[in-house]
Amino acid sequence: MTHVIFGGAGFIGSNLAGRLHSSGQRCIVFDDMSLGSQNNINFLDDADVVLGDINNGSDIEKLTSKLETSNAKDIKVWHLAANSDIVRGVNDSKVDFVKTFLTTQSILRFMQKNNFTKLYFSSTSAVYGDKGESLIAETSENLHPISNYGAYKLASEAIISAAREDFLDDVVIFRFPNVVGTPATHGVILDFIRKLQITPDELVVLGDGSQQKSYIHVKDLITAMLLCASKDHNERLPIFNIGNIDEGTTVRQIAESVVRHVSPDALIKYGSEPRGWKGDIPKFYYDVSKMRNLGWSPRYTSHQAVSKTISEILNNDEN
Amino acid sequence: MTHVIFGGAGFIGSNLAGRLHSSGQRCIVFDDMSLGSQNNINFLDDADVVLGDINNGSDIEKLTSKLETSNAKDIKVWHLAANSDIVRGVNDSKVDFVKTFLTTQSILRFMQKNNFTKLYFSSTSAVYGDKGESLIAETSENLHPISNYGAYKLASEAIISAAREDFLDDVVIFRFPNVVGTPATHGVILDFIRKLQITPDELVVLGDGSQQKSYIHVKDLITAMLLCASKDHNERLPIFNIGNIDEGTTVRQIAESVVRHVSPDALIKYGSEPRGWKGDIPKFYYDVSKMRNLGWSPRYTSHQAVSKTISEILNNDEN
Repeated sequence: MTHVIFGGAGFIGSNLAGRLHSSGQRCIVFDDMSLGSQNNINFLDDADVVLGDINNGSDIEKLTSKLETSNAKDIKVWHLAANSDIVRGVNDSKVDFVKTFLTTQSILRFMQKNNFTKLYFSSTSAVYGDKGESLIAETSENLHPISNYGAYKLASEAIISAAREDFLDDVVIFRFPNVVGTPATHGVILDFIRKLQITPDELVVLGDGSQQKSYIHVKDLITAMLLCASKDHNERLPIFNIGNIDEGTTVRQIAESVVRHVSPDALIKYGSEPRGWKGDIPKFYYDVSKMRNLGWSPRYTSHQAVSKTISEILNNDEN
Repeated sequence: MTHVIFGGAGFIGSNLAGRLHSSGQRCIVFDDMSLGSQNNINFLDDADVVLGDINNGSDIEKLTSKLETSNAKDIKVWHLAANSDIVRGVNDSKVDFVKTFLTTQSILRFMQKNNFTKLYFSSTSAVYGDKGESLIAETSENLHPISNYGAYKLASEAIISAAREDFLDDVVIFRFPNVVGTPATHGVILDFIRKLQITPDELVVLGDGSQQKSYIHVKDLITAMLLCASKDHNERLPIFNIGNIDEGTTVRQIAESVVRHVSPDALIKYGSEPRGWKGDIPKFYYDVSKMRNLGWSPRYTSHQAVSKTISEILNNDEN
């Protein structure tokens, strides 16, 4: 098997590439290095890294030429390329359109052209929209995203569904909420650490701190994704929620934890809104029983995942 | 109120414009005349017709300049522009991408820029995918379209959902299956009539004729859409299935009906597959109780709608 990983130099992609590489499997990483970085994938041979824009035909040709000697049936395509910076997409919907949606369309064209039929796609819990206090399962009704990020991920799922009818044989769609760990490029933990490094005496928090979410550590996420991809599924379009199994942790707890590690005397200043930004979902309950039924369990709780990530980021900063 | 109708010179759009116009309301039609036609909207003043491409900024400017004297709150936008020719989208996914999806994105940008907040969007039953024999309600789970047309309509719904959070105040999404009537530009009835006009002695049918669908006459559809748009809905994103209330009619019945009217001695030759084409849904049951609860009832059964359409097309041909 050869694994082609779009967005493979990014946060989740590089963790996936690392895991596959250390188990002796061939990985080819394609990335535009806008959020990804060469540093994240130094373990790969240069020949297995393609720098380019997925939406650019001649860049994709560079990738195709590396795969010419492989049997099309032995190619697994992982699509982890997206604008993962949700707040950026709130301010400019074009970012999500180009980086989250058009990339999906371009990858589908690339696959069809080369007779590649196995696709693993990282979607998001944001496709569900704001479900209030109800438990969110893969079969939830009324998927009405409230952010551009969620909308373009749902749009991506829709065209993957049509492609499944047309030429794809194996598809798995992963929907995950907040993933933490390193090398993170954005997110609340990194945000708080960076803010405190600039102004060590105070931490200004967007929203009132009550937003409660479950956080999964990237190591647990990769284990779940690889488990899903290794199984035969008897559904036309298998979709898996992947998230932690606890009720999560609040922004307030994260803020306090970061302050404790970085600048214990800092004052935390909260906003008045229950949302951090337009499109933020204050609180949600995620049903991951389908994933657990495959035999998967996370190693870290939400709280442990956050603490571990704070240490990982601070240790990286010291290097 | 001023009604801006994108795709207003097409089959459904021109019927909507006609109904609104005859009730004395102002309509401005924007159409690229690729499927629409000036003939369909001769009742409008030339000044109220804008010929252009929705995805072209300077064409949209022509529309904006016509609306400058109106209060933004008094504008209702109807988005009926799409590649309605599903089979064409099967052969070239780019058609649906540009005409069905990018048009939605361009209309949302146009609305945001001009502070227009009322949007009525024609989606499709194809967003549901193949649901087998189960009853399809607006709240059905697992919307996995199997055609590009359905996928790009679902993608459109997704970005409308995000825009609802951002700047839209009133939205209604209509999901309808097969609509018949005139001035139809495509579809099984027109297809059969054209085929028989060319080869009067035989009619070759795609599929085995068992495909059973409900057909709604465009006059009934317009009544339903206007009723929906006139109501206050207490949902964030109201979605209505609009379709007939009977079990529908089969392709075999339609073929026999057309033959009877056009060329009674013709031999009908059926294919062997239960589907007419890839992405065709052979049979489905559509729950329109939500629409009926608003007090709407169709005037014509599926069978009557088909017969009426055959007569309408043949009468038009004679004119």
